[in-house]
Amino acid sequence: MKAKIGIFDSGIGGLTVAAQIFKRLPQVDVIYFGDTARYPYGPRSDEIVRKFSFQNVRFLLSEKVDFIVVACNTASAFALKSLKKEFDIPLLGVVEPGAKAAIKYTKNKRIGVIGTVGTISSSSYPKAIKKIDGSIKVFARACPLLVALAEEGHINRKATYLIVKDYLKPLMRKDIDTLILGCTHYPLLKKIISQIVGKKIKLVDSAREIASELKKHFQEKGRLNQRKYKGEHFFFVSDAPEKFAEVGERFLGKKIPKVKKTNIENY
Amino acid sequence: MKAKIGIFDSGIGGLTVAAQIFKRLPQVDVIYFGDTARYPYGPRSDEIVRKFSFQNVRFLLSEKVDFIVVACNTASAFALKSLKKEFDIPLLGVVEPGAKAAIKYTKNKRIGVIGTVGTISSSSYPKAIKKIDGSIKVFARACPLLVALAEEGHINRKATYLIVKDYLKPLMRKDIDTLILGCTHYPLLKKIISQIVGKKIKLVDSAREIASELKKHFQEKGRLNQRKYKGEHFFFVSDAPEKFAEVGERFLGKKIPKVKKTNIENY
Repeated sequence: MKAKIGIFDSGIGGLTVAAQIFKRLPQVDVIYFGDTARYPYGPRSDEIVRKFSFQNVRFLLSEKVDFIVVACNTASAFALKSLKKEFDIPLLGVVEPGAKAAIKYTKNKRIGVIGTVGTISSSSYPKAIKKIDGSIKVFARACPLLVALAEEGHINRKATYLIVKDYLKPLMRKDIDTLILGCTHYPLLKKIISQIVGKKIKLVDSAREIASELKKHFQEKGRLNQRKYKGEHFFFVSDAPEKFAEVGERFLGKKIPKVKKTNIENY
Repeated sequence: MKAKIGIFDSGIGGLTVAAQIFKRLPQVDVIYFGDTARYPYGPRSDEIVRKFSFQNVRFLLSEKVDFIVVACNTASAFALKSLKKEFDIPLLGVVEPGAKAAIKYTKNKRIGVIGTVGTISSSSYPKAIKKIDGSIKVFARACPLLVALAEEGHINRKATYLIVKDYLKPLMRKDIDTLILGCTHYPLLKKIISQIVGKKIKLVDSAREIASELKKHFQEKGRLNQRKYKGEHFFFVSDAPEKFAEVGERFLGKKIPKVKKTNIENY
């Protein structure tokens, strides 16, 4: 039986997750939904992020997916638990795979996390890490400007360097050896972040980790056997499909063919 | 008869407009609605900004206002015309007052405008200016990062200076003598903008201009006679009232007492 994965994100950031899934699970159909009419989720309340996430899942279910990836850290932090309670479909967020990977990498048991205001205020990463290993120290910092800088393509600017450095300095002082990029936009700023933290700090990109978990899940279910089938990829947004296609190319690493619009408030 | 003005904005930026209205029309009741569940409007499509604006106006009408100020440049640019067609209530946007003021100030007939991607791509300022004086040259530039920098309070940072300078350099080369701050967030960055453009370029802050127009309107109607009455101010948002109160203080210049939440999708 063919597998069909639904991915949703507040906008284009989740495309970094989609890119890894396309790469690791080429024989799977994927539907991506970006809530471009209401992004970003980072600064919003838990209540409204839950409401939006429920609508997004109902839309993906209407497209007959059989697995849903919450490719948005804020939605994973605020909504995943409620979504799992409400819907009878396997759901995977980005927080747990990122947390697990960081635990695997850290040697001195001091992990840093950066993310949106919502993700950091939810303490979802520290909670997920401490649930597995209570002896690990987690240092978290909200970096609200990085989403805008990544989306505007300010990847190699001095101003971006100064802003990122300001955000990371307090974490580096805590002697962390692992840093979770707790927002799907941040992999675009990986080069600058690496320059600032140096080689001694390992960066954890949840996108890679989630794709590995998914591959394991579908392999165990025997759903990756049709090696010759090339999965189809569909893209939906709630606003401005042309702009999504244009900016999204930077996030996905390749051209986005056709983007359809859906009225998400109706779900 | 008491006057009751409704103001809506995508979020908190319109509070710079509210502040001027409170100051110039102290005897008027004001209801402010900030669409914090769906801000910012700047990067969104004309279609969705119109849809959101219609919902915002319907909410304000349910609160029995008798005048509506569209205190958001993007909504003024994309939705004002449609709103005027649909609703039988006086409506004023921020674009026209800003354009008129710039025409009054310019001597060399070369005006610059900065704003969100939406406002700039709509060409609403150039159109409004050229409608009054076709001989004026208008140079426009979208500055998508400034909203986030203003909201995060990065007002006096070197990174902000570098980003603003990058945005303004091409406009300054055009020998403008007047610059319209075509986004309600930008007055917070006035100091940095002044440092960069110098004293020879006059900055136009639409918030002040709109308050003057409103005062004239209500004076002509004889609605500002109750000098002893102190207008009441009400604040509504579509998400995160506490955060609105906290960040909004910087924009309004004083404490925001009580903020109520409304479900804007229902309007």
